[in-house]
Amino acid sequence: MKVDIGREIQQSAEETAGKIRGLLAARNVFSVNLISSPGSGKTTLIEKAIEALRGRIRIAVVEGDMETDIDAARIRRHGVQVHQINTRSSCHIPPFLLLSALDHLDLDAADLLFVENVGNLVCPAEVPLGEDLRVVALSVAEGDEKPLKYPLVFKTSDLLVITKTDLLPYVKFDTDRVKTAARAVNPRVEVFEVSSYTGSGLSSFLERIEELCRRKIG
Amino acid sequence: MKVDIGREIQQSAEETAGKIRGLLAARNVFSVNLISSPGSGKTTLIEKAIEALRGRIRIAVVEGDMETDIDAARIRRHGVQVHQINTRSSCHIPPFLLLSALDHLDLDAADLLFVENVGNLVCPAEVPLGEDLRVVALSVAEGDEKPLKYPLVFKTSDLLVITKTDLLPYVKFDTDRVKTAARAVNPRVEVFEVSSYTGSGLSSFLERIEELCRRKIG
Repeated sequence: MKVDIGREIQQSAEETAGKIRGLLAARNVFSVNLISSPGSGKTTLIEKAIEALRGRIRIAVVEGDMETDIDAARIRRHGVQVHQINTRSSCHIPPFLLLSALDHLDLDAADLLFVENVGNLVCPAEVPLGEDLRVVALSVAEGDEKPLKYPLVFKTSDLLVITKTDLLPYVKFDTDRVKTAARAVNPRVEVFEVSSYTGSGLSSFLERIEELCRRKIG
Repeated sequence: MKVDIGREIQQSAEETAGKIRGLLAARNVFSVNLISSPGSGKTTLIEKAIEALRGRIRIAVVEGDMETDIDAARIRRHGVQVHQINTRSSCHIPPFLLLSALDHLDLDAADLLFVENVGNLVCPAEVPLGEDLRVVALSVAEGDEKPLKYPLVFKTSDLLVITKTDLLPYVKFDTDRVKTAARAVNPRVEVFEVSSYTGSGLSSFLERIEELCRRKIG
């Protein structure tokens, strides 16, 4: 008997992702898997969402990092539910860790779950987390050829958020080149351009998140 | 019989890394494994090294990306030997791909081999490539808590290069915090602060690379 280990692992991941999806559907929670390189501004985007949607959408957060609870501490200051996963050597949140993280949250008191993945543009793209929406963030400081070099995450994401647009005057970054490359691998991707620092573009991104969330939770 | 697959893979990687090390030692080539997140400026650092060391150190380059030969094309314009690896789904350069890439280079015509790893702060840290020197780059746009969140790459690197320092006026980045955190996991790490855009700090970084290279190749 030949065992295809890669396939076994992928099947097991998809099974667990299915359980997460079922659990969140039963509790009427909309989930967002947020992926980017380290330092693209994922945590700040979540903080901005919490503040903007306060009183309208109840947000809970699962933070994924190899080590530390720095990000959970940042989120906790906003008074929302948060649970930190430390993946140690894993370069992404594996579905089984997300499933057990959900035990630490009161899902009946949440409408929208942000899952902030480990900072990595590669591995998380391959791993299903049962999410309703996948969002990839790319900062203008990272360069405009990234969708060509790392196509999978752009191909599998519903939304692309170009972040740190306040740095555009100081870096070489062609926004149109990124959009063209992302749409070449994923024609249906929706693109947003935001600066969490100046606030530019944030409202249209967050309105879209709210709209997609309401479409599920009613 | 219980097979520990993770251990088998790691042993196989170390064996192949040993072959790479032996091959490069026999040809008297000093090798640098350059690791960072996507978009921290690895390729630009190599371009700067090629220009600064031209006529003194013969540089060859292996480029690693999931897809495209964009970086190899950039390097080729400088008239040095370069070979592009496309890792497809792999989040790092595996040793066996580096070993076969070396077949494409005339190592007798090289003193210094730069191996630019896949843009990723996590996976490449775990994978030995038989290198003489491991260099991690971190751009000031990525945030100053990265050595805490992703300790392994900082622990296993000989040099830390803080890049894009020209952006310091526009981002929240405490250089001392990064140095303290990096030295907490790796007291012997040498830290450099550079801007490839203004040229600031480049010469001391490149002089150190040349010095370490000469120590091996004589």
